[in-house]
Amino acid sequence: MTDDYTPRPEHKFSFGLWTVGWQGVDPFGVATRDPLDPVETVHKLAELGAYGVTFHDDDLIPFGAAEDDRERRIAAFRKALDETGLVVPMATTNLFAHPVFKDGGLTANDRDVRRFALRKILRNLDLAAELGAHTYVLWGGREGSESPAAKDVRAALDRYAEGLNVLCAYVKERGYNIRFALEPKPNEPRGDILLPTIGHALAFISELEHSEMVGLNPEVGHEQMAGMSVVHGYAQALWHGKLFHIDLNGQTGPRYDQDFRFGNGDVKSAFFLVDLLEHGGYDGPRHFDFKPARTEDYSGVWASAAGCMRNYLILAERARAFRADPEVQEALAASRVDELSVPTLADGESLDDLRAEEFDVAEAAARGMHFERLDQLALEHLFGAR
Amino acid sequence: MTDDYTPRPEHKFSFGLWTVGWQGVDPFGVATRDPLDPVETVHKLAELGAYGVTFHDDDLIPFGAAEDDRERRIAAFRKALDETGLVVPMATTNLFAHPVFKDGGLTANDRDVRRFALRKILRNLDLAAELGAHTYVLWGGREGSESPAAKDVRAALDRYAEGLNVLCAYVKERGYNIRFALEPKPNEPRGDILLPTIGHALAFISELEHSEMVGLNPEVGHEQMAGMSVVHGYAQALWHGKLFHIDLNGQTGPRYDQDFRFGNGDVKSAFFLVDLLEHGGYDGPRHFDFKPARTEDYSGVWASAAGCMRNYLILAERARAFRADPEVQEALAASRVDELSVPTLADGESLDDLRAEEFDVAEAAARGMHFERLDQLALEHLFGAR
Amino acid sequence: MTDDYTPRPEHKFSFGLWTVGWQGVDPFGVATRDPLDPVETVHKLAELGAYGVTFHDDDLIPFGAAEDDRERRIAAFRKALDETGLVVPMATTNLFAHPVFKDGGLTANDRDVRRFALRKILRNLDLAAELGAHTYVLWGGREGSESPAAKDVRAALDRYAEGLNVLCAYVKERGYNIRFALEPKPNEPRGDILLPTIGHALAFISELEHSEMVGLNPEVGHEQMAGMSVVHGYAQALWHGKLFHIDLNGQTGPRYDQDFRFGNGDVKSAFFLVDLLEHGGYDGPRHFDFKPARTEDYSGVWASAAGCMRNYLILAERARAFRADPEVQEALAASRVDELSVPTLADGESLDDLRAEEFDVAEAAARGMHFERLDQLALEHLFGAR
Amino acid sequence: MTDDYTPRPEHKFSFGLWTVGWQGVDPFGVATRDPLDPVETVHKLAELGAYGVTFHDDDLIPFGAAEDDRERRIAAFRKALDETGLVVPMATTNLFAHPVFKDGGLTANDRDVRRFALRKILRNLDLAAELGAHTYVLWGGREGSESPAAKDVRAALDRYAEGLNVLCAYVKERGYNIRFALEPKPNEPRGDILLPTIGHALAFISELEHSEMVGLNPEVGHEQMAGMSVVHGYAQALWHGKLFHIDLNGQTGPRYDQDFRFGNGDVKSAFFLVDLLEHGGYDGPRHFDFKPARTEDYSGVWASAAGCMRNYLILAERARAFRADPEVQEALAASRVDELSVPTLADGESLDDLRAEEFDVAEAAARGMHFERLDQLALEHLFGAR
Repeated sequence: MTDDYTPRPEHKFSFGLWTVGWQGVDPFGVATRDPLDPVETVHKLAELGAYGVTFHDDDLIPFGAAEDDRERRIAAFRKALDETGLVVPMATTNLFAHPVFKDGGLTANDRDVRRFALRKILRNLDLAAELGAHTYVLWGGREGSESPAAKDVRAALDRYAEGLNVLCAYVKERGYNIRFALEPKPNEPRGDILLPTIGHALAFISELEHSEMVGLNPEVGHEQMAGMSVVHGYAQALWHGKLFHIDLNGQTGPRYDQDFRFGNGDVKSAFFLVDLLEHGGYDGPRHFDFKPARTEDYSGVWASAAGCMRNYLILAERARAFRADPEVQEALAASRVDELSVPTLADGESLDDLRAEEFDVAEAAARGMHFERLDQLALEHLFGAR
Repeated sequence: MTDDYTPRPEHKFSFGLWTVGWQGVDPFGVATRDPLDPVETVHKLAELGAYGVTFHDDDLIPFGAAEDDRERRIAAFRKALDETGLVVPMATTNLFAHPVFKDGGLTANDRDVRRFALRKILRNLDLAAELGAHTYVLWGGREGSESPAAKDVRAALDRYAEGLNVLCAYVKERGYNIRFALEPKPNEPRGDILLPTIGHALAFISELEHSEMVGLNPEVGHEQMAGMSVVHGYAQALWHGKLFHIDLNGQTGPRYDQDFRFGNGDVKSAFFLVDLLEHGGYDGPRHFDFKPARTEDYSGVWASAAGCMRNYLILAERARAFRADPEVQEALAASRVDELSVPTLADGESLDDLRAEEFDVAEAAARGMHFERLDQLALEHLFGAR
Repeated sequence: MTDDYTPRPEHKFSFGLWTVGWQGVDPFGVATRDPLDPVETVHKLAELGAYGVTFHDDDLIPFGAAEDDRERRIAAFRKALDETGLVVPMATTNLFAHPVFKDGGLTANDRDVRRFALRKILRNLDLAAELGAHTYVLWGGREGSESPAAKDVRAALDRYAEGLNVLCAYVKERGYNIRFALEPKPNEPRGDILLPTIGHALAFISELEHSEMVGLNPEVGHEQMAGMSVVHGYAQALWHGKLFHIDLNGQTGPRYDQDFRFGNGDVKSAFFLVDLLEHGGYDGPRHFDFKPARTEDYSGVWASAAGCMRNYLILAERARAFRADPEVQEALAASRVDELSVPTLADGESLDDLRAEEFDVAEAAARGMHFERLDQLALEHLFGAR
Repeated sequence: MTDDYTPRPEHKFSFGLWTVGWQGVDPFGVATRDPLDPVETVHKLAELGAYGVTFHDDDLIPFGAAEDDRERRIAAFRKALDETGLVVPMATTNLFAHPVFKDGGLTANDRDVRRFALRKILRNLDLAAELGAHTYVLWGGREGSESPAAKDVRAALDRYAEGLNVLCAYVKERGYNIRFALEPKPNEPRGDILLPTIGHALAFISELEHSEMVGLNPEVGHEQMAGMSVVHGYAQALWHGKLFHIDLNGQTGPRYDQDFRFGNGDVKSAFFLVDLLEHGGYDGPRHFDFKPARTEDYSGVWASAAGCMRNYLILAERARAFRADPEVQEALAASRVDELSVPTLADGESLDDLRAEEFDVAEAAARGMHFERLDQLALEHLFGAR
């Protein structure tokens, strides 16, 4: 076991401005922390070992800011990036905070609101491209309804698809090296949100004009709010070739969106998720989308950001040890995990051949799968007890 | 308000043999009811006003039955169908009850189990075709795992797709007029089941060789176990053209699979679901997949089956009155529900035009959506109070 | 069926200032509505047919207001009460919005914060008494933790009990005609809140010095966030003689606190809850603690408030019809519901007699309970279909 | 870090016969394992390092067994206990499997069923006393309903209390050294179960005639099915002096009862629970109530039983290291965790003194709680990374 859990740029850790910058406003309380200057955030994240920073338009430039104010803020941010070497791997649009989006952005009932939402995205897409982002996230937090009477879901999906089609065409036309990533969430702040899980968003993407340009940015906690296995979900996204970006954080099952620091919440899922990311072919940023608890001052904010990265590195080390352990390899074999990669039919085998096969049902039924032992080995690696 | 809630064949109500035939075995208790003869079930369902009956292979023919026993049972069933005029709109395979399927059927780690599962499906497909079924359901209740270590999800999805591809090819080769319908479920009996929601199954289907032959059979309670809006989910399935068949029942949120009779559980969702089915273009069977409570004798079983149909008819009447109410129509307009069907961009409009548009954000932000009033009108129709 | 669902003071409907006055701030968005003047609220509620209005100290008097401002606001409020005849049946303290309470009020780790919380309660208790309130609610929304390491739960319960004991002693000393009512909630805004359900709060009360002065103010949605049956919970509170006050609203299972208007959400539970309140001996206010959706302007706010009352009256009418229906009475008898009120042992019967009794297990096991029929009758009354 | 995680009798690990003896019947499948002889179980558990074994009457003696069969089975069991030194710390009654209990035992609507349930308990109480048990558990899994119409909750609580009062009187009369422990569960197999959480059961106990003889046997997974913090719940039970016995297992949030082996499921809660049990004054058995996955043969069964104990010992070691770590102690102080043990009012302090106190709200509001750092230290101990 190594003790070196120090984050470094090659680990590709990134944070949203809105994460460490969250001031603690929640449904029952006002801010507990002063605003954070994006420039300070960039420097602090660099110091902690991150490689990237991400943003919503309104995180960097207040909604409705004058043009010169906007330019000054962008210049300062860019200067901080240059000074620190931090990159901007991803950007996104705030289509949820302002009252004008109270019924959604791309799927608002009001057509002029949808048009405004499109304009807001386009403007920030240009900035994202300028700042070198390769992923543009769309979290449709307000795309949904509290009452089935209030939203024609099929019309909403038509408009959602229209919006994505327009955006993809624009990116192609401009020649931006940008792909879109949808971020599903089941509910909160809307009663029910459209595209509530990884699955629904993947299905939706398959209907788009430029579906190759659109993938996912699944968030750990959002899937867990629906009681989904985050490991199954991310694996299915990988299977579809659609794991474009990730939001790592923590959550304790179906309840309000807790946005715990990564590693907290469902610890066992975090272990297996890191195992999947490290050994499953994902090579994008390890992006944290969490909220430092409202109880904290800024020392707690930075401690929680550091904790996200440290937990990832500890779990990555645990996952490596798990996969390298000869007893684990033996246990995987005993559970026939690899046998699932063998096609069920032999190459060129006919169904007549299949149907003629003899099979000892009783023998097969009596075989143990040895999953308890395998899972126990995983837990012991998670505990650092092997 | 009409009082005529009497089910008739034109309402296309159907029931699984396993629903009214459930004997009450649960994780903590043994059977409370004697087995039901499928022939008796057919007669009783016809008497109650149903038009169809559906079955798993093992519901009709005990697992491992001798050939002559099998033929005798099929003949008796067919005779009952002839006598009553009941049809068999759907059939399915039991790949979950026998111990041999304890790690799944089409995605079991053991290849010989997967091959046996395929054989079992093929055999029952032939019977389904013979009996005139047009939909063949696959509920993969054992396709999943309790530990992420025990199941390579991507390999499992490869095998799942292989299985579907083989089955579609077979149906085409035989010229059966049959489409497949996948039934998602998040968990129970496995810790996490593959293709846990409507969304995940829709996405999976998009990767199949004959994806046009494969759609969904979503079950109300299964979606609600994941806290999903069943109305949103069914609407998305319709949007994809994939609502091939439905399983109607009731559930109270994320907990064990309750399989209440339809209308029970989340009553408001049932209202809006019937509204969607009746006015959204679904014209397949109204199929009930529920379990009469274990507390009941057979009088209660038949009362619960009758209740499913009666509740559907009451809700259909309520939904018709809701849509016809001039005040509702006015409220829908006030909420701009129809405006969502207007494309966001005008025909041929350029993004430059869009970007140049003036927009009064404050005015738009101040507009009320009037959703509370609209939803209240829906509730009052549900209560029969208008 | 009567059509008269017009709320009148004798129905004892009351609303919190913070309910209709909620401006729409949520975790992802800023206010969508301007502040509402408490005086206007009083007049509007009276107009709608309410009989009472309730408040947190900070709803009426901004935190930290100067003394003369405070007096002016109280006088204006009192004048509005006098003009309208509205009463103040309940008041409560805001121990959650200000950053000083970020780790709780009565159970904050910081002793000086706990002392400040006590002072804040005492001050508003005096005002509550002046305004004629007989119930004083404590919702401990910030009493809890995100990490078990951060809160010594047993010490926290000691402090909670200390706080209640002090408050009860004060009320007795002053001779106020006031009882306390604890409002449980499982989580949000804290990761886990102390006294998370009706049960936990009832148990806690049993350990207090003046336990007779302390009861519950259960909120429908809070119990449903924990997947609890609200009917079972309120019934247990009644059984303990502790249903001092109620918060009516709507919720869709375990997720964020939705605070829907009453009648919305779990409609069937709402029906049985009204049945319990109307026929189970509760005679306190019917108090609504809900949030009009953030999509609404003030016309929607008042529509939702009116909807709460109208839904209650419709459900009360449905419950009355249910209980009066001879077929329901016959069904209740068939289900032996009343037999549960007969003591299991006869008066003075010895256990030797009991043990000697003959019992035909098979006969008893075969008896159907007829619950499906009974529940179906309830649903049909809910639908107004009988 | 020690490597010695070998269970020994002084660790007081115990298992129910029904746990390792579970044959794998679930709602969708039949048994996958042959029955296990209780005598073999006793020997095997002793071999694995357990100190105790527990049982339902029907685990040991089939329902309705003849008297001589009963005696023979008891004698064989007793002999196995003598040979191995295993003790019987707890026993309980099966009031849920047989159809006669389909509507409950002590709260069945049918009075003769309630009387039979009492007789069944009395008979097994005598055996429990003979075998030296000091705790008698009551899990009321069938005490509940699927419809609020079907169960008068207050009458049910009257009957439940009557039952407990009778049982306590019997134990006192016989002079048995036995206390009762109620085991709460929110749902499954009933739609809603009475006394659904630790809190509801604690409240109920406070109303009993011999409340000092009745405490709790909370099960980890049952609380987590209601989204409850198991650490908060067990701590509240300890606060009331009512943690008489415990059921350790694992669960993943609100869904069906998973009964995972202990340590699996919510790993972080398991860590803090062991910390509470080891350092919070609980000295009863560490009893495992879990189900080895249905996929396993008996090698997997015993592996899972061994895993329960090994995980407990690993977590106990991690908790010891956590409490002993000077940096943790410093972090606890920084979070003022101990300050919560200081009474809020000084000894003899008057409320007038309290009200006169000056307080700098802004200063207090600005203080950070440092909970993120503290929780991070806990996680790192859990990971064995410090």
